[in-house]
Amino acid sequence: MNKKGILIVLSGPSGAGKGTICKALLEKADFCLSVSATTRHPRAGEVEGKNYYFLTRDDFKERIKKDDFLEYAEVYGNYYGTPRGSVLEAIENGKDVILEIDIQGALKVKESYPGGVFIFILPPSMEELRNRIIQRGSETPESLMTRFVSAYQEINYVSKYNYAVVNDTVEEAVRKIESIIAAEKCRVDRIKEDILDSKEGLIHEQLYD
Amino acid sequence: MNKKGILIVLSGPSGAGKGTICKALLEKADFCLSVSATTRHPRAGEVEGKNYYFLTRDDFKERIKKDDFLEYAEVYGNYYGTPRGSVLEAIENGKDVILEIDIQGALKVKESYPGGVFIFILPPSMEELRNRIIQRGSETPESLMTRFVSAYQEINYVSKYNYAVVNDTVEEAVRKIESIIAAEKCRVDRIKEDILDSKEGLIHEQLYD
Repeated sequence: MNKKGILIVLSGPSGAGKGTICKALLEKADFCLSVSATTRHPRAGEVEGKNYYFLTRDDFKERIKKDDFLEYAEVYGNYYGTPRGSVLEAIENGKDVILEIDIQGALKVKESYPGGVFIFILPPSMEELRNRIIQRGSETPESLMTRFVSAYQEINYVSKYNYAVVNDTVEEAVRKIESIIAAEKCRVDRIKEDILDSKEGLIHEQLYD
Repeated sequence: MNKKGILIVLSGPSGAGKGTICKALLEKADFCLSVSATTRHPRAGEVEGKNYYFLTRDDFKERIKKDDFLEYAEVYGNYYGTPRGSVLEAIENGKDVILEIDIQGALKVKESYPGGVFIFILPPSMEELRNRIIQRGSETPESLMTRFVSAYQEINYVSKYNYAVVNDTVEEAVRKIESIIAAEKCRVDRIKEDILDSKEGLIHEQLYD
């Protein structure tokens, strides 16, 4: 009934496992992954339009001026951004688009595209989050505590999201996200006009055919 | 994470198939069906507390005064109502409660319990709705047209609901309703406090153990 696709924003503290969930979702069903634009140089094997859209600094700044990004940020001297055009085009064509992004980015996307579905991925427990942060690499006890406290504070942003999914197991989290997407496609806010339009057509056929 | 159950209100025009969907849902998963109270006399085989709670007229009126019903109505001289107590008790005990009810009743429940999930069941098409109304019994062409136009007008109430599910096939409709329930259990509005409470507990363990 609803022809337009949905923007699904997967976000959460680092270490919650949003990357793994995103990958598993893309393998299971017919989603588009939103490809970011960046000014950093391509690494070996990276493909234009698949891994990133690679832009010059001037191009990127020009696009910022034209409001061409749903969100953008400068990280260690390079720009990264989510191109508005390709995301909205896919949605207009009925594709569901997945955007995996950090919390600050997700909150900016929410401002520019509030019709998205904002899903916060939670670690199973703070202990598990600590273990995952430790496993990621050679952190000193101080930097470990900094990252852990930062993840702890980030969890407060959950209240800005529509849904929260605990990443106990990837399979269970993916199943929940699939349910969320199926449910969103039944939300009256999204499909009311389609229902009332199709009703008009049908009653017309019934009464006058 | 969320301990409380959810009230799921299935509603829609007569002929949309909400009764069949409700029965299929109850066979599939662990839901409570809300049992109505009534002042009409029990029919052969009807069991107190299973088909209905049978009340005297005085009892029913007394309970109306005490605001003991989520909704009630008088139909052909008999009262019918949804007991607030048994529904809320099941929800407090973590059970999901299904209430199958007409549109007027659903809108009254929404006033008294806005935290419910209000699902509007749509017929696959107005033509199919007409066929179903015809199949139900010996209607005159005039009463058929009256019922059809009434169902047509009732579809406008869809905008008061949270979700709309088209009853193309019962299996598909049930699958969508199961997704809606799973998604509602991830809604941040419902579980925010649980997330933030459990976070506090966990960070406390991490920092002080």
